[in-house]
This record gives sequence, structure tokens and C-alpha cells, in this order.
Amino acid sequence: MARVFNFSAGPSMLPESVLNRAATEMLDYGGSGQSVMEMSHRSKVYDEIIVGAQQLLREVMNIPDNYKVLFLQGGASLQFAAIPLNLMTTGCADYIVTGQFSGKAHKEAQKYGLANCIASSKEQNFTTIPQVTAADLTPGADYLHICHNNTIFGSKYAELPQTGSVPLVADISSSFLSEPMDVSKFGVLYGGAQKNVAPAGLTIAIVHEDLLGKARANTPDVMNWKLMADNDSMLNTPPCWSIYMCKLVLEWIIQLGGLTVMQQRNEYKARLLYDYLDKSAMFSNPVEKKYRSLMNVTFVAKSEELNNLFVKEAAGAGFVNLKGHRSVGGMRASIYNAMPVEGLEQLVQFMADFERKYA
Amino acid sequence: MARVFNFSAGPSMLPESVLNRAATEMLDYGGSGQSVMEMSHRSKVYDEIIVGAQQLLREVMNIPDNYKVLFLQGGASLQFAAIPLNLMTTGCADYIVTGQFSGKAHKEAQKYGLANCIASSKEQNFTTIPQVTAADLTPGADYLHICHNNTIFGSKYAELPQTGSVPLVADISSSFLSEPMDVSKFGVLYGGAQKNVAPAGLTIAIVHEDLLGKARANTPDVMNWKLMADNDSMLNTPPCWSIYMCKLVLEWIIQLGGLTVMQQRNEYKARLLYDYLDKSAMFSNPVEKKYRSLMNVTFVAKSEELNNLFVKEAAGAGFVNLKGHRSVGGMRASIYNAMPVEGLEQLVQFMADFERKYA
Repeated sequence: MARVFNFSAGPSMLPESVLNRAATEMLDYGGSGQSVMEMSHRSKVYDEIIVGAQQLLREVMNIPDNYKVLFLQGGASLQFAAIPLNLMTTGCADYIVTGQFSGKAHKEAQKYGLANCIASSKEQNFTTIPQVTAADLTPGADYLHICHNNTIFGSKYAELPQTGSVPLVADISSSFLSEPMDVSKFGVLYGGAQKNVAPAGLTIAIVHEDLLGKARANTPDVMNWKLMADNDSMLNTPPCWSIYMCKLVLEWIIQLGGLTVMQQRNEYKARLLYDYLDKSAMFSNPVEKKYRSLMNVTFVAKSEELNNLFVKEAAGAGFVNLKGHRSVGGMRASIYNAMPVEGLEQLVQFMADFERKYA
Repeated sequence: MARVFNFSAGPSMLPESVLNRAATEMLDYGGSGQSVMEMSHRSKVYDEIIVGAQQLLREVMNIPDNYKVLFLQGGASLQFAAIPLNLMTTGCADYIVTGQFSGKAHKEAQKYGLANCIASSKEQNFTTIPQVTAADLTPGADYLHICHNNTIFGSKYAELPQTGSVPLVADISSSFLSEPMDVSKFGVLYGGAQKNVAPAGLTIAIVHEDLLGKARANTPDVMNWKLMADNDSMLNTPPCWSIYMCKLVLEWIIQLGGLTVMQQRNEYKARLLYDYLDKSAMFSNPVEKKYRSLMNVTFVAKSEELNNLFVKEAAGAGFVNLKGHRSVGGMRASIYNAMPVEGLEQLVQFMADFERKYA
């Protein structure tokens, strides 16, 4: 079958040139006589891959020297526990709940201390992002946790909450590498790689050095950021293949012009779809305009029947995984970096045809 | 470069036919128009892969119905913490230390309660396995933990310790799928996949149903075996690609005749090397014969100079990663399932030539 336009929320599309290269190097990486999957993680040839991936990530995201880059496992979900284990030293932290994953992070943190939900957009059905200033923070809170982009509801922070001296910890799973970010505004940035960075199995944390070394005594070794930093993410065997794929994806981003170009490309792609939705008489997007996600575009048709028919006909035409999350319904187009511009152009054309057909 | 014989302790060789298939399916798995790395883990096409991998593992290992198979992340090292978090309900458990990883498991467990080391082969430099009977166990211990095969020191249990009603928990990272095992003798079998099962990034636990549901309240969700079992290992995004590779490896094992044939093949391969070592005047293996590993063969030459020369000349001849672990020195040939018989035949020939040359 021809390659499809895959709008999955994650795992999701990878650049075709990256997949081709991985296939080509499958049995013999760089003349080593081995697949990357077969290499000892302590070998010189693999060391160049993991060190290279880290250096490219630093370059692409412009990560300051006083931040550590950690290659981890277990997904953002395991970090939901790692964050309080590593940072909640006074026993109290603040959370803003703007969707399902920020809610999960908040719930997990309650196992380890007082995790205050200081703001939520639940009453607005997560179609907006609450405004928070330093005055809203709990005095003495160890950190403020946010989810930068809400994969399920299709919303995103337009500006970051002001936290003063309190470290801002952000789950960027679904906005990772989608646009430039000022890393210095965060204490910790982290996310699963399976949306925009690499195949599933790799989790990346970018941690300010000042936040290392505070972990509780009963933190599992591989969840202890300081131990992982001190061991260059090799306290135990890392997810070698996903890190290799991450390096190839970063090389592809650099080739395209880096994150500024990536943001322009993503804004162009998202605008194609949002502009169509805003003028459509059949489809609509529920999110407050200012907070619309660049990566996950949610929309509904005028009836449940049309929703179902649309998802089915779209799949038949090669636009797959457009069904919205089960907790929201309707449709969702996840349009990460690797989704080609043509994917959006053709989707919008398909939607317009569908609208004419079933108006 | 031609494919090399890679004696890495893990990650390690994968069957060439499996790598070829993965390369062929890279851009379009089964007519889906997607790479396995791009698929939603909730999609029908991926569901067939993860369910298929689990079913094949059950078939190959003859896993009884009252055991759950869990696909996890974080390596055996994260399970070193998960084991006490899930099982140490009375606050006390027993450990046998027979090498570096069983020592690490013991150390990690001490974060969560009283972890007794009831036997160790440290004084014998880990060249043997201590005998333990039910009478040696601490009364009331929640479980006894062992490491079935010691990757670094090249030793292995010849018979399992008798534990009576106390669950036996075994790290089988480096003996996974190398020979038939009677799963019913264990409470928990677990291991990192990167030696004999799949590329790094996948950890598998096989847990008796009676041991589920005992986790401490502060266990991270994705480390809670019951939650993972209830969610078919999909509480969050699993390491999709490694699970797919695991399925391909299991299909390869079945094609070769299953674990009984695999054991015979592994015994033949190991015997080639051990027999040569036992008659060599230059090389020797330090492990008590009864406890010699089938997967990791350690050996030393008569001098440090010869050790270094051997590792160097062997690498030049296409036998790579033969250097022993830094804590042991000398050499180690890890000869997992995917190491072809020719790898051993040619290695022994090379060693004999080396011995004649430098005698």
C-alpha cells in the first residue's frame, strides 16, 4: 500500500527520509558490521550516537550549559512520579490542570505529598488555559507543574505562567521540537518522544543543574535524575534504537532549517486546517483561538453520524487515525513535524468535498 | 563491512533474518502504509502485534494461564525497585547475591524494607552458586530473589533453590528464551529484553496472578504490576518497536523448533568453547563446571598482555566485543540465541591459531 497520511496523536509519523535511512543502515551501521539494535551501549560506535543525539538536541533547542539532558524510559507517566520524588523536598507543589495528562500528573504527585491544583480549565471543558501569576502559587511550593500542549483537547499555553523563583516544570510531550522554546524559563522540560522526536520507548528530561541532587532516599536509582546525569543516561542500558532514531530526526530538523523554520511550517500547516474549520458550516473547533494547539487540531461535525461517516470515509481515502480521543469524541488531526504540508492541503480538500457532498 | 560476530553481553546480536524482515517492513508494515514505529498503540494493526507477541511468548515459554505477561520499560534495574514495591508487604524479603546484578537488586530493595542477603558467592569471586534450602529462608520473608544467570561472571543456577511456599523471584535477563524453564516454579520471572529477546527498551515480567494487587500505595502507576496487567501493558504508550522485534524473534525461535531445540543448539555452541578452554594451555575458565553459564563464557589468558593482544586481534578478525566486564577483566564471549554456530566454530579456530602463534 502507498504511505498514508497518519494523523495519530502518538506514536505518529516519522520523516520518510529518516525511515529510509534506518532501513538502509539496518544490518550494518556505518561499516560496523552491526545493526544499531545489536550494539553494546558501552561501545565506541554507539557512544558516538548517544553523545551525538544529545549534542544535536542541545543545538536545536539551544539548551544552556547549566541544564542536563537525560535520556530515560517509562514515558511521561513515569516522570509524573519522578518529578515529586526528585523535587518535592518541602512536601508541597502546585499543579495546573488543563487536560487529561496534567490531571494524571497531578494525581500521581499526590502519592508523595501535597499537590495543589491551583487552577483548572475543567469547567470550560478544557477549551482554554487559565491565567496564573506568581501570586496564585502556594507559598513554599517546590515547583509549578504544567502540561505545555494538551494532546487530547488540542489546546496550548500562549504565554507561560509567571512563577518568580519557583521552578516551572513542563510536560512538553506533544509540543517537543515543534517551535523554539526558551529553556531558561523552565526548571524542567520533559516528555515522551513518541510524538515529535523518536519512536516510543524514549523519554527526555532537560533539567536545570540546581534541581539535581534533591531526590528522596527511596527514589529508584533509574528515576533519580542526578544519578542518571552523573552516568550520562547510562546507569543501565538506555533505549538505544529510539535514541538513534532521535538523532536522525534531529539531523532532519537541522537540514530543514531548525526550530524557527519548523515553527513557521507548523503554523502554516495548522492555519490551513483552522482557517477551513472557521469558515466551515459543517465542522468546527471548540478551543479558544488564543490557546489553539499547533500540533493537535480537534474538530466536530454537526452530528455524531457525520463524525462517524467522516472518520470512515477519510480512512478510506488514506487519512488515517482522525478519530478523536474517546474522552472527547469527534475528530482530531495530530499534525506533528513529520506530517507533510501536502497532508494538510489534501485533508482540507477532502473535508471541503465531504462538506459539499453531505451538506 | 561484512557482518561481524558480535559477542556483546547486551545489547547483542539479533537473527539476520529478523533484521532483514524489519528493514523490508520499515516503511509499510503489512499493507498499513505505516512503519510500526509510526502506529498508534491503540490501533487495530498494532494491537495484533502486541497481542501476538504475548501469545507467542506464552506458547514458546509454555506460560500457565494463571500468570500475566507484562511488557514494561526501564530495564531490570527499574524492576529492582518494582519488586519490593509490589511484593514486600511484610517489609522483609530474602536475596541471594551471585554477581553484580543480584547485588544491585539487593541494594535497591533496601530502600523499601529489610532485604536480607541469605547467601552469597562473593568470597568465591562469584565463580559458584551457593546452595540454599527452604530452611535458610528468613521466616516471614515475602519472597526470595535470585539472578538466574550472571552475565558478568558467567555462572548460572544448575538447580533452583527450594523455597517452599515463598515466591521465587528471578531476574532472567541473560537466560531469557535460552532454554525451557518451568514457569510454575516461580512467582515472578523478569528481565531486560536486550540480550536474547529484542532490542533494548523492553522489559518483560511474568507474574503469578496471586502476587498481583499487593503494591504499596506510593508505587508509581506504571510500576504497579496489577495496573499494567489490568491494562494489557498499555496503561501508557508501550515500547512499540521493541515489542514488534520481540514478536519477530519469537517467530524465528518457533521456526527453529522452540526452546528445546534452542537449548540443544546453545549447549552445542557453549560446549565448543568450554571444551577448547578446558584443554587449552593458554586460556582458562574460572567457573565451577556445574554452574557454568550457557550464555556468557568468561575466560582469561595466561597474562594481561595476552588478554589485551587477544581482544585486539580478535576484533581485527571480526570477533567483536570479547573484552570482559571492567570489574572482572579478561575476556567474555556472550553467545546468545542469535549467535550462529559458525561464530563459535570460527572463534575456537581463531583461539587455537592464536594459542599456537603466541605459545
